[in-house]
Amino acid sequence: MESAPSPSEADRLATQLAFILELDRAKQVLRRSYLADGSRRENDAEHMWHAAVAAAVLSGHSGEPVDAARTVKLLLFHDVVEIDAGDTFVYDEVGLAGKEEREQAAATRLFGMLPEDQRDELVDLWEEFEAAQTPEARFARAIDRLMPLLLNRSSGGRSWRENGITAEQVRAVNGVIAEASPLLWAAADAVISDAEMLGWLPPGQPAPPAA
Amino acid sequence: MESAPSPSEADRLATQLAFILELDRAKQVLRRSYLADGSRRENDAEHMWHAAVAAAVLSGHSGEPVDAARTVKLLLFHDVVEIDAGDTFVYDEVGLAGKEEREQAAATRLFGMLPEDQRDELVDLWEEFEAAQTPEARFARAIDRLMPLLLNRSSGGRSWRENGITAEQVRAVNGVIAEASPLLWAAADAVISDAEMLGWLPPGQPAPPAA
Repeated sequence: MESAPSPSEADRLATQLAFILELDRAKQVLRRSYLADGSRRENDAEHMWHAAVAAAVLSGHSGEPVDAARTVKLLLFHDVVEIDAGDTFVYDEVGLAGKEEREQAAATRLFGMLPEDQRDELVDLWEEFEAAQTPEARFARAIDRLMPLLLNRSSGGRSWRENGITAEQVRAVNGVIAEASPLLWAAADAVISDAEMLGWLPPGQPAPPAA
Repeated sequence: MESAPSPSEADRLATQLAFILELDRAKQVLRRSYLADGSRRENDAEHMWHAAVAAAVLSGHSGEPVDAARTVKLLLFHDVVEIDAGDTFVYDEVGLAGKEEREQAAATRLFGMLPEDQRDELVDLWEEFEAAQTPEARFARAIDRLMPLLLNRSSGGRSWRENGITAEQVRAVNGVIAEASPLLWAAADAVISDAEMLGWLPPGQPAPPAA
């Protein structure tokens, strides 16, 4: 495909500002997780910020060396596709079925609002996160999983209890943390064990999904 | 001051996780700005994310070369002091009076939750943003100011109108954008001129503060 002529800087800026404004909608995509005080569910913008600052603080605990700034950038953009595709609960096997196609279409539309060079850069960034083939992507994915554990611990396991999640499911889904950082996994595993003891997470098979 | 003995990695992690959890409270610090669709006010976590992604996309427009990743990091942490100090509206001259002392105390408490090396790093980062003496801090401050202009444009000038702000005030406060990037200022100035034409911003002296 032939490149379009390079737009003027003002046109480039107008295109970028339209993209940035579109990202505002991430503030209205609700996740299953509650704030630490349990007062309400958090949204994607809040989650991406919280995960990014957590990565900046915790990058020294990665089991393999990581570029902290790149890990932060992966997390800053990792859920913007949910503006179109919606949040899919990590324990929702039905919802997970069409997730890849929905998110691919969202990435094409959203990142396609940008000038070509930045479109390509952000599509690559998002695909790097999804593929988990670089140390930064693996660590970013571990942080992405760690955040709901921290919020569940603080909010009395609220999103786990509301959704009938078991300790077995939480351990299976969060195995990526163990691969990225033994130390983070030790902390995550302690959260899960405490939640079991407190009765927030039953040990066995998942409860039938809520109607 | 003598350094304390280096704590074990697990102790270090526990300290960091407590800090990260404390930052969750930024999700409950409301700003004056509304979401683009005007449906509700945004909070500090959402704003820090939105400003950080905007900086990542717009860093090429800085009038002086900037390290984009450092600009992003400045914005990711620039308002966490408001967890303790509260948000001070940029046009609120009374509120601005005690702002520096409140925010300094907040920085001491919040960043002081971290291991010493990270406490020092994040205090330096926050002070760099406040001092505006590096290209990255100047550009980050321009982005911080640009975001409410974009949200006001989309939400019918809602936070300006609610607070009786004039075009003269908006131009004075947002002069930092012109210093950081002539191109961003051209876009910002067009937003302000449009708002004047639409009657969202009266040209003259500020209205008396709402009771």
